[in-house]
Amino acid sequence: MSAIVGVIMGSKSDWPTMKSATDMLDEFGIAYEVKVVSAHRTPDLMFEYAETAQDRGLEVIIAGAGGSAHLPGMVASKTIVPVLGVPIQSKALSGQDSLLSIVQMPGGIPVGTLAIGESGAKNAGILAAQIVGNHNEEVRKKVAQFRSEQTQSVLNNPNPNK
Amino acid sequence: MSAIVGVIMGSKSDWPTMKSATDMLDEFGIAYEVKVVSAHRTPDLMFEYAETAQDRGLEVIIAGAGGSAHLPGMVASKTIVPVLGVPIQSKALSGQDSLLSIVQMPGGIPVGTLAIGESGAKNAGILAAQIVGNHNEEVRKKVAQFRSEQTQSVLNNPNPNK
Amino acid sequence: MSAIVGVIMGSKSDWPTMKSATDMLDEFGIAYEVKVVSAHRTPDLMFEYAETAQDRGLEVIIAGAGGSAHLPGMVASKTIVPVLGVPIQSKALSGQDSLLSIVQMPGGIPVGTLAIGESGAKNAGILAAQIVGNHNEEVRKKVAQFRSEQTQSVLNNPNPNK
Amino acid sequence: MSAIVGVIMGSKSDWPTMKSATDMLDEFGIAYEVKVVSAHRTPDLMFEYAETAQDRGLEVIIAGAGGSAHLPGMVASKTIVPVLGVPIQSKALSGQDSLLSIVQMPGGIPVGTLAIGESGAKNAGILAAQIVGNHNEEVRKKVAQFRSEQTQSVLNNPNPNK
Amino acid sequence: MSAIVGVIMGSKSDWPTMKSATDMLDEFGIAYEVKVVSAHRTPDLMFEYAETAQDRGLEVIIAGAGGSAHLPGMVASKTIVPVLGVPIQSKALSGQDSLLSIVQMPGGIPVGTLAIGESGAKNAGILAAQIVGNHNEEVRKKVAQFRSEQTQSVLNNPNPNK
Amino acid sequence: MSAIVGVIMGSKSDWPTMKSATDMLDEFGIAYEVKVVSAHRTPDLMFEYAETAQDRGLEVIIAGAGGSAHLPGMVASKTIVPVLGVPIQSKALSGQDSLLSIVQMPGGIPVGTLAIGESGAKNAGILAAQIVGNHNEEVRKKVAQFRSEQTQSVLNNPNPNK
Amino acid sequence: MSAIVGVIMGSKSDWPTMKSATDMLDEFGIAYEVKVVSAHRTPDLMFEYAETAQDRGLEVIIAGAGGSAHLPGMVASKTIVPVLGVPIQSKALSGQDSLLSIVQMPGGIPVGTLAIGESGAKNAGILAAQIVGNHNEEVRKKVAQFRSEQTQSVLNNPNPNK
Amino acid sequence: MSAIVGVIMGSKSDWPTMKSATDMLDEFGIAYEVKVVSAHRTPDLMFEYAETAQDRGLEVIIAGAGGSAHLPGMVASKTIVPVLGVPIQSKALSGQDSLLSIVQMPGGIPVGTLAIGESGAKNAGILAAQIVGNHNEEVRKKVAQFRSEQTQSVLNNPNPNK
Repeated sequence: MSAIVGVIMGSKSDWPTMKSATDMLDEFGIAYEVKVVSAHRTPDLMFEYAETAQDRGLEVIIAGAGGSAHLPGMVASKTIVPVLGVPIQSKALSGQDSLLSIVQMPGGIPVGTLAIGESGAKNAGILAAQIVGNHNEEVRKKVAQFRSEQTQSVLNNPNPNK
Repeated sequence: MSAIVGVIMGSKSDWPTMKSATDMLDEFGIAYEVKVVSAHRTPDLMFEYAETAQDRGLEVIIAGAGGSAHLPGMVASKTIVPVLGVPIQSKALSGQDSLLSIVQMPGGIPVGTLAIGESGAKNAGILAAQIVGNHNEEVRKKVAQFRSEQTQSVLNNPNPNK
Repeated sequence: MSAIVGVIMGSKSDWPTMKSATDMLDEFGIAYEVKVVSAHRTPDLMFEYAETAQDRGLEVIIAGAGGSAHLPGMVASKTIVPVLGVPIQSKALSGQDSLLSIVQMPGGIPVGTLAIGESGAKNAGILAAQIVGNHNEEVRKKVAQFRSEQTQSVLNNPNPNK
Repeated sequence: MSAIVGVIMGSKSDWPTMKSATDMLDEFGIAYEVKVVSAHRTPDLMFEYAETAQDRGLEVIIAGAGGSAHLPGMVASKTIVPVLGVPIQSKALSGQDSLLSIVQMPGGIPVGTLAIGESGAKNAGILAAQIVGNHNEEVRKKVAQFRSEQTQSVLNNPNPNK
Repeated sequence: MSAIVGVIMGSKSDWPTMKSATDMLDEFGIAYEVKVVSAHRTPDLMFEYAETAQDRGLEVIIAGAGGSAHLPGMVASKTIVPVLGVPIQSKALSGQDSLLSIVQMPGGIPVGTLAIGESGAKNAGILAAQIVGNHNEEVRKKVAQFRSEQTQSVLNNPNPNK
Repeated sequence: MSAIVGVIMGSKSDWPTMKSATDMLDEFGIAYEVKVVSAHRTPDLMFEYAETAQDRGLEVIIAGAGGSAHLPGMVASKTIVPVLGVPIQSKALSGQDSLLSIVQMPGGIPVGTLAIGESGAKNAGILAAQIVGNHNEEVRKKVAQFRSEQTQSVLNNPNPNK
Repeated sequence: MSAIVGVIMGSKSDWPTMKSATDMLDEFGIAYEVKVVSAHRTPDLMFEYAETAQDRGLEVIIAGAGGSAHLPGMVASKTIVPVLGVPIQSKALSGQDSLLSIVQMPGGIPVGTLAIGESGAKNAGILAAQIVGNHNEEVRKKVAQFRSEQTQSVLNNPNPNK
Repeated sequence: MSAIVGVIMGSKSDWPTMKSATDMLDEFGIAYEVKVVSAHRTPDLMFEYAETAQDRGLEVIIAGAGGSAHLPGMVASKTIVPVLGVPIQSKALSGQDSLLSIVQMPGGIPVGTLAIGESGAKNAGILAAQIVGNHNEEVRKKVAQFRSEQTQSVLNNPNPNK
């Protein structure tokens, strides 16, 4: 089964965060590929990755990056496959730099940005599934079920101190 | 032609910003609906809107809100249709409050967040088209053409002081 | 004795913070209920909770939430029982996101917001008691006594290095 | 009819903001008093105001202040009448200083804080009415009616571009 | 020798920071007094402390406080003895709240504010000595000598990696 | 009468702000000198100004600067005359850069920092007078009278809407 | 004379800011080229520009950009010609987003970042001249003279209120 | 071989950060000198250092400082040798103060600013090499090779979870 979601990140150190995205894709049975693609250290690879994304069949690209987080926006500039950006929690500024670098894109090139860190990565996986689910009944059902179980899990444990 | 994108906002005063989203949808020939839906003043309408979104055929919901911007996240909590959030530039804090309220969603319920203000609204329209375009050749072509013309427009005017 | 204060929070992980609110209510002998109610994972429960609050006799609702902290504001949108919001200290942004999401409510739907974290939770408990105390002599006396003892405790230990 | 809500502010220049609070109190038929009380320029008046608040029959104090906004917290330190704080939008920092000065109270002395500026002042008036309404059927009904009309007003005008 | 500098702080937990101020006063042989005075928990003590400061012979008051740090500004409102404020590093916001609460005083009541935390406390002690030294030859000489030794200490160790 | 307070600023454009400092010094009858001294454009003049300050009889130096506001801290590094810093409201960052550049001095070299902008400049003038007043009965009386009139002015106009 | 400094910017709207850079280059008699090169709208042009920079003889590249300001960092990723970045003052966030996007580059790819807005653009021109001046006596002399005149201009006008 | 890059820092405690700059200079075989020079504690040494820099043959000065980080800007005010600034991650504000103090220089005196902390120090070393490399073929080749290896290192390890 060829990948329909691409998960890329600027550095190996982003993996502990970005793994939450692939965990979700696993949950929904969505085929994906994972790769380190650095905007600043491997700009040509990044462009090639973005340029070939549509033809390779990707329907969503999830890109995580920290600090001057240029990866999501630059990938978005080279493809019309929807790009979701995950701001990695940076050392000095806790991801405020990553968030602003990713979300404040100029009119013309969109990046759908998620929360800083692990929650954002998890949600990127879910949002990718929702997008795929628009035309994939099976994935849509799995997302609906995941959401339903998530709700039930809270309802079943209403007491915070137990 | 029934709407496949829903564009909602918390207040009529958000319209000058959010119009940029519908301008893009017009550009790409995507059918949409526009409505004021306030998370805080019309919570029941908001829930009803979200609950019926999928059955009504919406493939993307674009929600703009400012300040304690709860609309995008709450709509997302009631549907598995992908939700894109546009932070409206608020008076005192220039949209920093809107941005954080929209983007910092907990793991489980994603909102794809765009830039503060008009650029964000424009990009929400484009990202919606990219999502729709995944399974709509015509829209995809129009997005590709828009992007190509956008590039050409810069290339044709390289001199900043003319 | 049926609850007159409702203490809710978005997640079990908020309990170590929110316990400070119930400690205060215990101190003042105020009956309360505690429950996990998630704006995003259990939106229907949240609405039902808010809608029935007044009839169940609640005089104050204390709601704690972190990140895109929508719980206090959304509960407030569905009841006229006074709502107090406690911003939970979030991981990446230390509760700045929680604070702005809770406090920057639009005109029409108020949330009385307390400090980020444990101090805020403790103060929510005290403020709830002050509100209840407006028409409950016994509670008012206990609050006055608590405040007096608090003052005395500082006066009795004026030397910082002992 | 003697005042049950006290509305104070640090300077005459806060009045255009704070008027929104008294407009709401007028709407709900709640008797109130209005006064300039400066924490820094009239500290003794402030203490006297706070000390006598309960005996004068005040059930809520609304205090607006900007910059190093000490008025709400210091009034709260001298009374057990519930205090609501309104951060005035300051010149250089747009009310970020006012907000943090008011909301970040230490455990022991609560101030229920509203949004920066006019929305916050309006909401302080409404929250005061909700608190008063706990034991005043007439006020409670008026708040419920106001909220209902507010909702209806949005429902009646769903089209943002008209 | 009666105290000419008063060092106060809002809580015993501020002592590890504020000790750096008294260390400097010890260095310069300046008589001082140290006391916990809480703006919010002991407002009357605070006013009495400030009102009697001049008659008791204080020439400078150093006040440390965190969060909604009202102590320095409120003391300043009740005396014309120069007040120096030290923002204590707070838990959630790292002292950004303390700094703004202390420094953003309205025109009319000044607080000379130092850096957040220990450096600020140390510098408050030195600045107090500089003020005292204006009319105290002995103190002035000691400050000059301290500064000279401080310079020499850097000059003697120019190599950072030894 | 030779100057006992020096008022310097980094640029002529700071004068509309810094004039508030000299207005206060005029009010208290304190002799002062005013000069443009730029840390970055006239570093040697700055050092000479600071080095000769004590011998020229200055008891306080008030330094206003914006952006990378190095003037107050660098003057402080070259004299033991007390230095008060006024952060000028900068264009892009509204004085947040000026404030942090001035107030966050390392342990060893203090700058007593006032509020951003005009209030800060006014307060620098008052604080200088309070410092001078420690050993100048006449100035102290004038400061006390100014403060008393300031209080009376608020007390005489308690009604905000008149 | 072929250009040795390249001045690029993401949009024509950046020109009023970036003109200050070319004014400086004119002042120092340095040959330069000016072009609109958008990271997001013309990514291929950007890469080509950067890749050919060294061979075309550029010794410094000055790149101005706002919001998600990726231009300076991406150009830097494709050349070893020194890149200076100028954060353009953005609408909602006043250039805080531009600054962080440009300056927070990961280890490996440097961008020498200047101040937000016009001052930053002017300084980029001067810093480029200082770099060129390392091996160009004529330019170095002109920079030294400019700096000397700048100093003299302040010294000649010491009185701020004239 | 006499030093052509000067690496200075405000305190010995900055060395663990600044060492990354000298590691890079070692990598490129560039002669450098390292010294603690404090703007505030050794202002005269700082001026002497800057004044003699050009004659001693320095082509770039790298200056690291934290908090009220005046070292880079003040050195820049006394030389026309290009100055690169490294904001040290400070305790309370994580280097936000250092960054703004260094980067927000007024028009006329530039400092090329790098990222907060270790990445910034490393990049200062690389940018210095790029500047030196403009007229030093050997250094330029080493920088090109370093960059090429850096790229290759990412390309060789594309799998984030291995």
